[in-house]
Amino acid sequence: MRLIDGNAIAQQVLAEVKARVALLSPVIPHVAFVRVGDDPASVSYVTKKQKTAAEVGMQASLQLFPETVTKEELFHHLDALNADASVHGILIQAPLPKHLPETEVFNRVSPEKDVDGFGTQSIGRLVQELPGAFAACTPAGVIELLRRSGVETAGKHAVVVGRSLIVGKPAAALLLAKGCDCTVTIAHSRTRDLASIVRQADLVIAAIGKPRFITVDMIKPGAVVIDVGINRVPDATKKTGYRIVGDVDFDAVAPLCEAITPVPGGVGPMTVAMLMKNTLDACVRQRG
Amino acid sequence: MRLIDGNAIAQQVLAEVKARVALLSPVIPHVAFVRVGDDPASVSYVTKKQKTAAEVGMQASLQLFPETVTKEELFHHLDALNADASVHGILIQAPLPKHLPETEVFNRVSPEKDVDGFGTQSIGRLVQELPGAFAACTPAGVIELLRRSGVETAGKHAVVVGRSLIVGKPAAALLLAKGCDCTVTIAHSRTRDLASIVRQADLVIAAIGKPRFITVDMIKPGAVVIDVGINRVPDATKKTGYRIVGDVDFDAVAPLCEAITPVPGGVGPMTVAMLMKNTLDACVRQRG
Repeated sequence: MRLIDGNAIAQQVLAEVKARVALLSPVIPHVAFVRVGDDPASVSYVTKKQKTAAEVGMQASLQLFPETVTKEELFHHLDALNADASVHGILIQAPLPKHLPETEVFNRVSPEKDVDGFGTQSIGRLVQELPGAFAACTPAGVIELLRRSGVETAGKHAVVVGRSLIVGKPAAALLLAKGCDCTVTIAHSRTRDLASIVRQADLVIAAIGKPRFITVDMIKPGAVVIDVGINRVPDATKKTGYRIVGDVDFDAVAPLCEAITPVPGGVGPMTVAMLMKNTLDACVRQRG
Repeated sequence: MRLIDGNAIAQQVLAEVKARVALLSPVIPHVAFVRVGDDPASVSYVTKKQKTAAEVGMQASLQLFPETVTKEELFHHLDALNADASVHGILIQAPLPKHLPETEVFNRVSPEKDVDGFGTQSIGRLVQELPGAFAACTPAGVIELLRRSGVETAGKHAVVVGRSLIVGKPAAALLLAKGCDCTVTIAHSRTRDLASIVRQADLVIAAIGKPRFITVDMIKPGAVVIDVGINRVPDATKKTGYRIVGDVDFDAVAPLCEAITPVPGGVGPMTVAMLMKNTLDACVRQRG
Protein backbone atom coordinates (compact mmCIF):
# COMPACT_ATOMS: atom_id res chain seq x y z
CA MET A 1 0.00 0.00 0.00
CA ARG A 2 1.20 3.44 -0.97
CA LEU A 3 -0.06 6.54 0.82
CA ILE A 4 -0.74 9.42 -1.58
CA ASP A 5 0.56 12.48 0.24
CA GLY A 6 -1.81 15.31 -0.66
CA ASN A 7 0.09 17.80 1.47
CA ALA A 8 3.34 17.17 -0.38
CA ILE A 9 1.73 17.24 -3.83
CA ALA A 10 -0.23 20.40 -2.98
CA GLN A 11 3.06 22.02 -1.94
CA GLN A 12 4.52 21.20 -5.38
CA VAL A 13 1.52 22.81 -7.09
CA LEU A 14 1.67 25.83 -4.83
CA ALA A 15 5.41 26.28 -5.41
CA GLU A 16 4.76 26.34 -9.16
CA VAL A 17 1.90 28.81 -8.71
CA LYS A 18 4.04 31.03 -6.49
CA ALA A 19 6.82 31.12 -9.09
CA ARG A 20 4.36 32.07 -11.84
CA VAL A 21 2.69 34.71 -9.62
CA ALA A 22 6.09 36.33 -9.00
CA LEU A 23 6.59 36.73 -12.75
CA LEU A 24 3.36 38.76 -13.03
CA SER A 25 4.60 41.56 -10.77
CA PRO A 26 3.45 44.30 -10.42
CA VAL A 27 0.11 42.62 -11.17
CA ILE A 28 -1.13 40.62 -8.16
CA PRO A 29 -3.80 37.96 -8.73
CA HIS A 30 -6.75 38.73 -6.51
CA VAL A 31 -9.35 36.25 -5.29
CA ALA A 32 -12.48 37.52 -3.55
CA PHE A 33 -14.11 35.20 -1.03
CA VAL A 34 -17.79 35.47 -0.24
CA ARG A 35 -19.07 33.83 2.91
CA VAL A 36 -22.66 33.81 4.12
CA GLY A 37 -23.25 33.09 7.79
CA ASP A 38 -20.87 31.54 10.30
CA ASP A 39 -20.88 27.82 9.63
CA PRO A 40 -17.73 26.72 11.50
CA ALA A 41 -16.48 24.51 8.66
CA SER A 42 -16.95 27.37 6.17
CA VAL A 43 -15.08 29.76 8.44
CA SER A 44 -12.22 27.31 8.68
CA TYR A 45 -12.08 26.62 4.92
CA VAL A 46 -12.11 30.29 3.96
CA THR A 47 -9.43 31.10 6.54
CA LYS A 48 -7.23 28.33 5.16
CA LYS A 49 -7.74 29.53 1.57
CA GLN A 50 -6.94 33.15 2.49
CA LYS A 51 -3.78 32.05 4.27
CA THR A 52 -2.64 29.99 1.28
CA ALA A 53 -3.35 32.86 -1.11
CA ALA A 54 -1.06 35.07 0.95
CA GLU A 55 1.65 32.39 0.95
CA VAL A 56 1.76 32.25 -2.85
CA GLY A 57 1.78 36.03 -3.17
CA MET A 58 -1.85 36.60 -4.08
CA GLN A 59 -4.31 39.14 -2.79
CA ALA A 60 -7.34 37.74 -0.97
CA SER A 61 -10.36 39.71 0.13
CA LEU A 62 -13.32 38.53 2.14
CA GLN A 63 -16.93 39.69 2.00
CA LEU A 64 -19.11 38.48 4.84
CA PHE A 65 -22.90 38.43 4.71
CA PRO A 66 -25.36 37.58 7.46
CA GLU A 67 -27.32 34.33 7.27
CA THR A 68 -30.38 36.47 6.48
CA VAL A 69 -29.01 38.05 3.30
CA THR A 70 -31.51 37.96 0.45
CA LYS A 71 -30.75 36.65 -3.00
CA GLU A 72 -31.16 40.17 -4.41
CA GLU A 73 -28.71 41.67 -1.90
CA LEU A 74 -26.18 38.92 -2.58
CA PHE A 75 -26.56 39.31 -6.36
CA HIS A 76 -26.05 43.05 -6.03
CA HIS A 77 -22.70 42.46 -4.38
CA LEU A 78 -21.71 39.68 -6.79
CA ASP A 79 -22.43 42.01 -9.70
CA ALA A 80 -20.12 44.59 -8.14
CA LEU A 81 -17.36 41.99 -7.81
CA ASN A 82 -17.96 40.87 -11.41
CA ALA A 83 -17.56 44.49 -12.54
CA ASP A 84 -14.46 45.16 -10.43
CA ALA A 85 -11.46 44.79 -12.76
CA SER A 86 -9.10 44.37 -9.77
CA VAL A 87 -10.83 41.09 -8.82
CA HIS A 88 -9.74 38.09 -10.95
CA GLY A 89 -11.49 35.26 -9.19
CA ILE A 90 -14.63 34.96 -7.02
CA LEU A 91 -15.32 32.09 -4.65
CA ILE A 92 -18.64 31.70 -2.86
CA GLN A 93 -18.11 29.31 0.02
CA ALA A 94 -20.67 26.49 0.06
CA PRO A 95 -22.92 25.44 1.65
CA LEU A 96 -25.28 28.41 1.50
CA PRO A 97 -28.33 28.90 3.73
CA LYS A 98 -31.36 27.02 2.44
CA HIS A 99 -33.24 30.10 1.20
CA LEU A 100 -30.48 30.84 -1.34
CA PRO A 101 -30.65 28.75 -4.54
CA GLU A 102 -27.07 27.48 -4.70
CA THR A 103 -26.77 26.80 -8.44
CA GLU A 104 -28.35 30.14 -9.30
CA VAL A 105 -25.93 31.93 -6.98
CA PHE A 106 -22.94 30.12 -8.52
CA ASN A 107 -24.20 31.07 -11.98
CA ARG A 108 -24.20 34.76 -11.04
CA VAL A 109 -20.38 34.79 -11.01
CA SER A 110 -18.91 35.94 -14.36
CA PRO A 111 -17.64 32.90 -16.27
CA GLU A 112 -14.16 34.45 -16.52
CA LYS A 113 -13.99 34.82 -12.71
CA ASP A 114 -15.57 31.45 -11.88
CA VAL A 115 -12.46 29.97 -10.27
CA ASP A 116 -14.61 27.50 -8.35
CA GLY A 117 -15.84 26.05 -11.65
CA PHE A 118 -19.48 25.60 -10.57
CA GLY A 119 -21.13 27.91 -13.13
CA THR A 120 -22.94 26.80 -16.28
CA GLN A 121 -20.16 27.94 -18.61
CA SER A 122 -17.44 26.19 -16.62
CA ILE A 123 -19.37 22.91 -16.36
CA GLY A 124 -20.46 23.05 -20.00
CA ARG A 125 -16.95 23.69 -21.30
CA LEU A 126 -15.58 20.91 -19.07
CA VAL A 127 -18.04 18.42 -20.58
CA GLN A 128 -17.28 19.75 -24.07
CA GLU A 129 -13.57 19.18 -23.31
CA LEU A 130 -12.74 22.71 -24.44
CA PRO A 131 -9.43 24.18 -23.29
CA GLY A 132 -9.48 26.94 -20.72
CA ALA A 133 -12.42 25.67 -18.68
CA PHE A 134 -12.16 26.21 -14.93
CA ALA A 135 -12.51 22.72 -13.52
CA ALA A 136 -14.07 22.57 -10.07
CA CYS A 137 -11.18 22.64 -7.59
CA THR A 138 -11.81 19.37 -5.77
CA PRO A 139 -12.18 17.16 -8.88
CA ALA A 140 -9.29 19.01 -10.53
CA GLY A 141 -7.27 18.27 -7.40
CA VAL A 142 -8.18 14.59 -7.62
CA ILE A 143 -6.89 14.41 -11.21
CA GLU A 144 -3.71 16.28 -10.29
CA LEU A 145 -3.12 13.88 -7.37
CA LEU A 146 -3.46 10.90 -9.69
CA ARG A 147 -1.14 12.39 -12.32
CA ARG A 148 1.56 13.43 -9.91
CA SER A 149 1.43 10.08 -8.09
CA GLY A 150 1.96 8.27 -11.38
CA VAL A 151 -1.42 6.50 -11.28
CA GLU A 152 -2.26 5.37 -14.83
CA THR A 153 -5.92 6.03 -15.69
CA ALA A 154 -6.45 5.04 -19.36
CA GLY A 155 -8.85 2.12 -19.69
CA LYS A 156 -9.30 1.81 -15.94
CA HIS A 157 -12.74 1.51 -14.43
CA ALA A 158 -13.34 4.48 -12.12
CA VAL A 159 -16.35 4.42 -9.81
CA VAL A 160 -17.37 7.84 -8.52
CA VAL A 161 -19.58 7.53 -5.44
CA GLY A 162 -21.68 10.69 -5.25
CA ARG A 163 -23.38 12.78 -7.94
CA SER A 164 -23.01 16.31 -6.58
CA LEU A 165 -22.41 19.23 -8.92
CA ILE A 166 -19.39 20.17 -6.81
CA VAL A 167 -17.53 16.88 -6.88
CA GLY A 168 -19.16 13.79 -8.36
CA LYS A 169 -20.33 15.10 -11.72
CA PRO A 170 -17.25 17.14 -12.66
CA ALA A 171 -14.98 14.33 -11.40
CA ALA A 172 -16.80 11.91 -13.70
CA ALA A 173 -16.45 14.34 -16.64
CA LEU A 174 -12.71 14.73 -16.05
CA LEU A 175 -12.09 10.99 -15.68
CA LEU A 176 -14.05 10.30 -18.87
CA ALA A 177 -12.34 12.99 -20.96
CA LYS A 178 -9.64 12.25 -23.51
CA GLY A 179 -6.32 12.05 -21.70
CA CYS A 180 -7.81 10.32 -18.64
CA ASP A 181 -9.86 7.83 -20.69
CA CYS A 182 -11.41 5.95 -17.77
CA THR A 183 -14.52 3.88 -18.03
CA VAL A 184 -16.64 5.79 -15.51
CA THR A 185 -19.48 4.67 -13.28
CA ILE A 186 -21.37 7.18 -11.15
CA ALA A 187 -23.07 5.63 -8.14
CA HIS A 188 -25.16 7.48 -5.57
CA SER A 189 -27.77 7.24 -2.85
CA ARG A 190 -30.28 5.56 -5.18
CA THR A 191 -27.80 2.94 -6.45
CA ARG A 192 -28.79 -0.67 -5.86
CA ASP A 193 -26.15 -3.03 -4.50
CA LEU A 194 -23.56 -0.30 -4.19
CA ALA A 195 -21.00 -2.71 -2.76
CA SER A 196 -20.87 -4.85 -5.87
CA ILE A 197 -20.60 -1.76 -8.09
CA VAL A 198 -17.76 -0.22 -6.12
CA ARG A 199 -16.00 -3.58 -5.87
CA GLN A 200 -15.38 -3.49 -9.62
CA ALA A 201 -13.45 -0.26 -9.45
CA ASP A 202 -9.80 0.01 -10.29
CA LEU A 203 -10.16 3.56 -9.04
CA VAL A 204 -12.65 4.65 -6.35
CA ILE A 205 -13.56 8.32 -5.90
CA ALA A 206 -15.49 8.54 -2.63
CA ALA A 207 -17.55 11.73 -2.53
CA ILE A 208 -20.77 10.85 -0.78
CA GLY A 209 -20.29 12.86 2.40
CA LYS A 210 -20.90 10.04 4.87
CA PRO A 211 -18.22 9.12 7.41
CA ARG A 212 -16.51 5.76 6.72
CA PHE A 213 -19.27 4.82 4.27
CA ILE A 214 -16.92 2.90 1.96
CA THR A 215 -16.08 -0.28 3.81
CA VAL A 216 -13.54 -3.00 3.16
CA ASP A 217 -16.05 -5.36 1.52
CA MET A 218 -16.56 -2.78 -1.25
CA ILE A 219 -12.92 -2.66 -2.34
CA LYS A 220 -11.20 -4.77 -4.94
CA PRO A 221 -7.68 -5.67 -3.82
CA GLY A 222 -5.19 -3.47 -5.65
CA ALA A 223 -7.61 -0.59 -6.18
CA VAL A 224 -6.57 3.05 -5.94
CA VAL A 225 -8.85 4.90 -3.49
CA ILE A 226 -9.28 8.69 -3.45
CA ASP A 227 -11.24 9.87 -0.44
CA VAL A 228 -12.92 13.24 -1.00
CA GLY A 229 -14.95 13.14 2.22
CA ILE A 230 -14.36 15.63 5.01
CA ASN A 231 -16.70 14.66 7.84
CA ARG A 232 -16.68 15.81 11.44
CA VAL A 233 -17.32 13.02 13.94
CA PRO A 234 -17.55 13.53 17.71
CA ASP A 235 -14.30 12.77 19.56
CA ALA A 236 -14.16 13.50 23.28
CA THR A 237 -10.36 13.17 23.31
CA LYS A 238 -10.01 16.27 21.09
CA LYS A 239 -10.02 19.81 22.36
CA THR A 240 -12.55 20.73 19.65
CA GLY A 241 -14.75 17.78 20.55
CA TYR A 242 -14.57 16.36 17.03
CA ARG A 243 -12.17 14.97 14.49
CA ILE A 244 -12.16 14.77 10.72
CA VAL A 245 -12.68 11.47 8.93
CA GLY A 246 -13.19 10.68 5.27
CA ASP A 247 -15.89 8.76 3.40
CA VAL A 248 -13.65 5.67 3.49
CA ASP A 249 -13.08 3.35 6.44
CA PHE A 250 -9.38 4.01 6.07
CA ASP A 251 -7.89 1.61 8.62
CA ALA A 252 -9.67 -1.40 7.18
CA VAL A 253 -9.48 -0.40 3.52
CA ALA A 254 -5.89 0.88 3.28
CA PRO A 255 -4.09 -2.50 3.51
CA LEU A 256 -6.00 -3.74 0.43
CA CYS A 257 -5.18 -0.76 -1.80
CA GLU A 258 -2.44 -0.16 -4.27
CA ALA A 259 -2.65 3.48 -3.21
CA ILE A 260 -4.96 5.57 -1.03
CA THR A 261 -5.32 9.17 0.13
CA PRO A 262 -5.56 9.89 3.86
CA VAL A 263 -8.07 12.30 5.43
CA PRO A 264 -6.90 14.83 6.40
CA GLY A 265 -3.86 15.36 4.19
CA GLY A 266 -5.21 13.94 0.94
CA VAL A 267 -7.67 15.71 -1.34
CA GLY A 268 -8.28 18.65 1.03
CA PRO A 269 -4.98 20.47 0.46
CA MET A 270 -5.28 19.83 -3.29
CA THR A 271 -8.64 21.65 -3.41
CA VAL A 272 -6.97 24.74 -1.98
CA ALA A 273 -3.98 24.43 -4.31
CA MET A 274 -6.17 24.11 -7.41
CA LEU A 275 -8.13 27.20 -6.36
CA MET A 276 -4.86 29.14 -6.39
CA LYS A 277 -3.97 27.72 -9.80
CA ASN A 278 -7.42 28.64 -11.18
CA THR A 279 -7.12 32.18 -9.79
CA LEU A 280 -3.69 32.59 -11.36
CA ASP A 281 -5.04 31.32 -14.70
CA ALA A 282 -8.02 33.69 -14.42
CA CYS A 283 -5.69 36.62 -13.79
CA VAL A 284 -3.43 35.73 -16.73
CA ARG A 285 -6.43 35.38 -19.07
CA GLN A 286 -8.01 38.65 -17.91
CA ARG A 287 -4.73 40.48 -18.41
CA GLY A 288 -4.77 39.08 -21.98
CA MET B 1 -39.52 -9.52 -25.58
CA ARG B 2 -41.31 -6.26 -26.19
CA LEU B 3 -40.52 -4.08 -29.21
CA ILE B 4 -40.41 -0.38 -28.34
CA ASP B 5 -42.12 1.32 -31.26
CA GLY B 6 -40.29 4.60 -31.81
CA ASN B 7 -42.51 5.55 -34.73
CA ALA B 8 -45.68 5.28 -32.66
CA ILE B 9 -44.23 7.12 -29.65
CA ALA B 10 -42.79 9.85 -31.89
CA GLN B 11 -46.26 10.28 -33.39
CA GLN B 12 -47.68 10.81 -29.88
CA VAL B 13 -45.07 13.49 -29.17
CA LEU B 14 -45.64 15.14 -32.54
CA ALA B 15 -49.42 15.17 -32.05
CA GLU B 16 -48.92 16.98 -28.74
CA VAL B 17 -46.50 19.43 -30.34
CA LYS B 18 -48.91 20.07 -33.22
CA ALA B 19 -51.74 20.83 -30.81
CA ARG B 20 -49.58 23.28 -28.87
CA VAL B 21 -48.32 24.90 -32.09
CA ALA B 22 -51.91 25.51 -33.21
CA LEU B 23 -52.59 27.42 -29.98
CA LEU B 24 -49.76 29.86 -30.76
CA SER B 25 -51.37 31.13 -33.96
CA PRO B 26 -50.68 33.59 -35.56
CA VAL B 27 -47.13 33.00 -34.29
CA ILE B 28 -45.47 30.13 -36.13
CA PRO B 29 -42.44 28.47 -34.58
CA HIS B 30 -39.55 28.67 -37.02
CA VAL B 31 -36.55 26.38 -37.14
CA ALA B 32 -33.61 27.25 -39.40
CA PHE B 33 -31.53 24.37 -40.71
CA VAL B 34 -27.92 24.87 -41.68
CA ARG B 35 -26.26 22.24 -43.82
CA VAL B 36 -22.68 22.28 -45.06
CA GLY B 37 -21.85 20.14 -48.08
CA ASP B 38 -23.82 17.26 -49.54
CA ASP B 39 -23.23 14.27 -47.27
CA PRO B 40 -26.07 11.95 -48.34
CA ALA B 41 -27.05 11.05 -44.76
CA SER B 42 -27.16 14.75 -43.82
CA VAL B 43 -29.31 15.54 -46.85
CA SER B 44 -31.71 12.80 -45.86
CA TYR B 45 -31.86 13.83 -42.16
CA VAL B 46 -32.49 17.49 -42.95
CA THR B 47 -35.17 16.63 -45.50
CA LYS B 48 -36.92 14.43 -42.94
CA LYS B 49 -36.76 17.14 -40.28
CA GLN B 50 -38.13 19.80 -42.67
CA LYS B 51 -40.99 17.52 -43.64
CA THR B 52 -41.86 16.82 -40.02
CA ALA B 53 -41.74 20.54 -39.17
CA ALA B 54 -44.30 21.20 -41.90
CA GLU B 55 -46.51 18.37 -40.60
CA VAL B 56 -46.72 19.91 -37.11
CA GLY B 57 -47.38 23.39 -38.49
CA MET B 58 -43.95 24.89 -38.07
CA GLN B 59 -41.92 26.99 -40.46
CA ALA B 60 -38.62 25.45 -41.59
CA SER B 61 -35.93 27.21 -43.58
CA LEU B 62 -32.74 25.78 -44.96
CA GLN B 63 -29.41 27.45 -45.53
CA LEU B 64 -26.92 25.51 -47.62
CA PHE B 65 -23.20 26.15 -47.65
CA PRO B 66 -20.54 24.59 -49.83
CA GLU B 67 -18.06 22.12 -48.32
CA THR B 68 -15.43 24.87 -48.66
CA VAL B 69 -17.17 27.45 -46.45
CA THR B 70 -14.78 29.04 -43.97
CA LYS B 71 -15.45 29.28 -40.25
CA GLU B 72 -15.67 33.07 -40.56
CA GLU B 73 -18.25 32.88 -43.35
CA LEU B 74 -20.31 30.34 -41.43
CA PHE B 75 -20.14 32.41 -38.22
CA HIS B 76 -21.24 35.49 -40.15
CA HIS B 77 -24.41 33.66 -41.24
CA LEU B 78 -25.01 32.11 -37.83
CA ASP B 79 -24.79 35.57 -36.26
CA ALA B 80 -27.43 36.78 -38.69
CA LEU B 81 -29.72 33.88 -37.75
CA ASN B 82 -29.08 34.59 -34.06
CA ALA B 83 -30.10 38.20 -34.60
CA ASP B 84 -33.20 37.35 -36.66
CA ALA B 85 -36.18 37.54 -34.30
CA SER B 86 -38.32 35.48 -36.68
CA VAL B 87 -36.04 32.45 -36.16
CA HIS B 88 -36.69 30.56 -32.91
CA GLY B 89 -34.40 27.58 -33.30
CA ILE B 90 -31.19 26.89 -35.23
CA LEU B 91 -29.94 23.43 -36.13
CA ILE B 92 -26.54 22.84 -37.71
CA GLN B 93 -26.57 19.37 -39.22
CA ALA B 94 -23.57 17.31 -38.11
CA PRO B 95 -21.12 16.05 -39.18
CA LEU B 96 -19.29 19.12 -40.44
CA PRO B 97 -16.29 19.07 -42.79
CA LYS B 98 -13.04 18.48 -40.91
CA HIS B 99 -11.75 22.06 -41.26
CA LEU B 100 -14.68 23.38 -39.18
CA PRO B 101 -14.29 22.98 -35.40
CA GLU B 102 -17.60 21.32 -34.55
CA THR B 103 -17.92 22.32 -30.88
CA GLU B 104 -16.96 25.91 -31.64
CA VAL B 105 -19.57 26.06 -34.41
CA PHE B 106 -22.27 24.66 -32.12
CA ASN B 107 -21.29 27.23 -29.48
CA ARG B 108 -21.88 30.05 -31.95
CA VAL B 109 -25.65 29.44 -31.82
CA SER B 110 -27.43 31.68 -29.28
CA PRO B 111 -28.23 29.64 -26.16
CA GLU B 112 -31.94 30.53 -26.48
CA LYS B 113 -32.02 29.16 -30.05
CA ASP B 114 -29.85 26.09 -29.37
CA VAL B 115 -32.61 23.56 -30.04
CA ASP B 116 -30.01 20.89 -30.77
CA GLY B 117 -28.68 21.25 -27.21
CA PHE B 118 -24.98 21.00 -28.12
CA GLY B 119 -23.82 24.44 -26.93
CA THR B 120 -21.98 25.15 -23.68
CA GLN B 121 -25.02 26.72 -21.99
CA SER B 122 -27.31 23.83 -22.90
CA ILE B 123 -24.86 21.15 -21.76
CA GLY B 124 -23.96 23.07 -18.60
CA ARG B 125 -27.58 23.61 -17.58
CA LEU B 126 -28.36 19.97 -18.29
CA VAL B 127 -25.59 18.83 -15.95
CA GLN B 128 -26.70 21.43 -13.38
CA GLU B 129 -30.21 19.96 -13.65
CA LEU B 130 -31.68 23.42 -14.16
CA PRO B 131 -35.13 23.67 -15.69
CA GLY B 132 -35.43 24.98 -19.22
CA ALA B 133 -32.25 23.46 -20.62
CA PHE B 134 -32.43 22.24 -24.21
CA ALA B 135 -31.47 18.59 -23.94
CA ALA B 136 -29.79 17.21 -27.05
CA CYS B 137 -32.55 15.69 -29.18
CA THR B 138 -31.32 12.11 -29.41
CA PRO B 139 -30.70 11.59 -25.67
CA ALA B 140 -33.92 13.47 -24.87
CA GLY B 141 -35.68 11.10 -27.27
CA VAL B 142 -34.18 8.11 -25.49
CA ILE B 143 -35.53 9.30 -22.14
CA GLU B 144 -38.95 10.02 -23.66
CA LEU B 145 -39.03 6.53 -25.21
CA LEU B 146 -38.27 4.97 -21.82
CA ARG B 147 -40.91 7.06 -20.03
CA ARG B 148 -43.66 6.46 -22.56
CA SER B 149 -42.91 2.73 -22.71
CA GLY B 150 -43.24 2.48 -18.94
CA VAL B 151 -39.61 1.45 -18.37
CA GLU B 152 -38.74 2.16 -14.73
CA THR B 153 -35.27 3.74 -14.40
CA ALA B 154 -34.73 4.57 -10.71
CA GLY B 155 -31.89 2.55 -9.21
CA LYS B 156 -31.26 0.68 -12.44
CA HIS B 157 -27.77 0.31 -13.82
CA ALA B 158 -27.57 2.02 -17.21
CA VAL B 159 -24.51 1.45 -19.37
CA VAL B 160 -24.02 4.07 -22.08
CA VAL B 161 -21.67 2.83 -24.79
CA GLY B 162 -20.11 5.87 -26.44
CA ARG B 163 -18.89 9.18 -25.01
CA SER B 164 -19.80 11.64 -27.76
CA LEU B 165 -20.96 15.14 -26.94
CA ILE B 166 -24.01 14.54 -29.12
CA VAL B 167 -25.30 11.35 -27.53
CA GLY B 168 -23.21 9.55 -24.91
CA LYS B 169 -22.43 12.38 -22.53
CA PRO B 170 -25.86 14.08 -22.46
CA ALA B 171 -27.57 10.66 -22.26
CA ALA B 172 -25.45 9.86 -19.20
CA ALA B 173 -26.31 13.24 -17.64
CA LEU B 174 -30.05 12.70 -18.19
CA LEU B 175 -30.03 9.14 -16.85
CA LEU B 176 -28.10 10.25 -13.76
CA ALA B 177 -30.30 13.26 -12.99
CA LYS B 178 -32.95 13.29 -10.28
CA GLY B 179 -36.11 11.78 -11.69
CA CYS B 180 -34.24 9.13 -13.71
CA ASP B 181 -31.88 8.18 -10.88
CA CYS B 182 -29.94 5.50 -12.73
CA THR B 183 -26.53 4.31 -11.70
CA VAL B 184 -24.67 5.24 -14.89
CA THR B 185 -21.59 3.73 -16.50
CA ILE B 186 -20.06 5.32 -19.59
CA ALA B 187 -18.01 2.92 -21.67
CA HIS B 188 -16.15 3.76 -24.87
CA SER B 189 -13.44 2.79 -27.32
CA ARG B 190 -10.79 2.74 -24.57
CA THR B 191 -12.84 0.58 -22.19
CA ARG B 192 -11.24 -2.70 -21.19
CA ASP B 193 -13.41 -5.81 -21.26
CA LEU B 194 -16.40 -3.98 -22.63
CA ALA B 195 -18.47 -7.17 -22.75
CA SER B 196 -18.36 -7.71 -19.00
CA ILE B 197 -19.22 -4.04 -18.36
CA VAL B 198 -22.22 -4.03 -20.70
CA ARG B 199 -23.37 -7.41 -19.38
CA GLN B 200 -24.13 -5.77 -16.02
CA ALA B 201 -26.56 -3.31 -17.53
CA ASP B 202 -30.26 -3.32 -16.74
CA LEU B 203 -30.43 -0.67 -19.45
CA VAL B 204 -28.06 -0.49 -22.43
CA ILE B 205 -27.75 2.70 -24.49
CA ALA B 206 -25.76 1.78 -27.60
CA ALA B 207 -24.26 4.90 -29.17
CA ILE B 208 -20.88 3.89 -30.47
CA GLY B 209 -21.57 4.16 -34.20
CA LYS B 210 -20.41 0.70 -35.21
CA PRO B 211 -22.80 -1.68 -36.97
CA ARG B 212 -23.93 -4.62 -34.80
CA PHE B 213 -21.16 -3.92 -32.29
CA ILE B 214 -23.25 -4.98 -29.28
CA THR B 215 -23.46 -8.75 -29.52
CA VAL B 216 -25.54 -11.28 -27.62
CA ASP B 217 -22.73 -12.23 -25.22
CA MET B 218 -22.77 -8.62 -23.90
CA ILE B 219 -26.41 -8.65 -22.84
CA LYS B 220 -27.86 -9.65 -19.49
CA PRO B 221 -31.14 -11.55 -19.95
CA GLY B 222 -34.01 -9.20 -19.18
CA ALA B 223 -32.14 -6.04 -20.08
CA VAL B 224 -33.76 -3.09 -21.86
CA VAL B 225 -31.74 -2.16 -24.95
CA ILE B 226 -31.94 1.22 -26.67
CA ASP B 227 -30.08 1.29 -29.98
CA VAL B 228 -29.01 4.78 -31.03
CA GLY B 229 -26.87 3.60 -33.94
CA ILE B 230 -27.77 4.47 -37.53
CA ASN B 231 -25.18 2.74 -39.72
CA ARG B 232 -25.29 2.17 -43.47
CA VAL B 233 -24.08 -1.26 -44.51
CA PRO B 234 -23.78 -2.44 -48.12
CA ASP B 235 -26.78 -4.46 -49.33
CA ALA B 236 -26.90 -5.47 -53.00
CA THR B 237 -30.58 -6.43 -52.71
CA LYS B 238 -31.54 -2.78 -52.07
CA LYS B 239 -32.08 -0.21 -54.76
CA THR B 240 -29.89 2.23 -52.82
CA GLY B 241 -27.15 -0.38 -52.43
CA TYR B 242 -27.23 -0.15 -48.64
CA ARG B 243 -29.46 -0.67 -45.66
CA ILE B 244 -29.59 0.83 -42.19
CA VAL B 245 -28.59 -1.22 -39.15
CA GLY B 246 -28.09 -0.21 -35.53
CA ASP B 247 -25.19 -0.63 -33.13
CA VAL B 248 -26.88 -3.75 -31.75
CA ASP B 249 -26.92 -7.20 -33.36
CA PHE B 250 -30.72 -7.06 -33.17
CA ASP B 251 -31.67 -10.58 -34.34
CA ALA B 252 -29.46 -12.30 -31.79
CA VAL B 253 -29.96 -9.83 -28.94
CA ALA B 254 -33.72 -9.20 -29.13
CA PRO B 255 -34.91 -12.58 -27.78
CA LEU B 256 -32.93 -11.99 -24.56
CA CYS B 257 -34.34 -8.52 -23.85
CA GLU B 258 -37.24 -7.35 -21.77
CA ALA B 259 -37.59 -4.59 -24.35
CA ILE B 260 -35.58 -3.31 -27.30
CA THR B 261 -35.79 -0.59 -29.95
CA PRO B 262 -35.52 -1.54 -33.63
CA VAL B 263 -33.39 0.29 -36.20
CA PRO B 264 -34.93 1.91 -38.14
CA GLY B 265 -38.09 2.85 -36.26
CA GLY B 266 -36.67 3.26 -32.76
CA VAL B 267 -34.63 6.23 -31.59
CA GLY B 268 -34.42 7.89 -35.03
CA PRO B 269 -38.00 9.22 -35.20
CA MET B 270 -37.73 10.34 -31.56
CA THR B 271 -34.73 12.55 -32.39
CA VAL B 272 -36.84 14.37 -34.97
CA ALA B 273 -39.82 14.63 -32.60
CA MET B 274 -37.72 16.08 -29.78
CA LEU B 275 -36.29 18.66 -32.16
CA MET B 276 -39.84 19.83 -32.85
CA LYS B 277 -40.58 19.94 -29.12
CA ASN B 278 -37.39 21.93 -28.44
CA THR B 279 -38.24 24.40 -31.23
CA LEU B 280 -41.73 24.88 -29.85
CA ASP B 281 -40.31 25.45 -26.35
CA ALA B 282 -37.77 27.91 -27.77
CA CYS B 283 -40.54 29.83 -29.51
CA VAL B 284 -42.70 29.97 -26.39
CA ARG B 285 -39.77 31.18 -24.27
CA GLN B 286 -38.73 33.83 -26.81
CA ARG B 287 -42.29 35.11 -27.01
CA GLY B 288 -42.11 35.46 -23.20
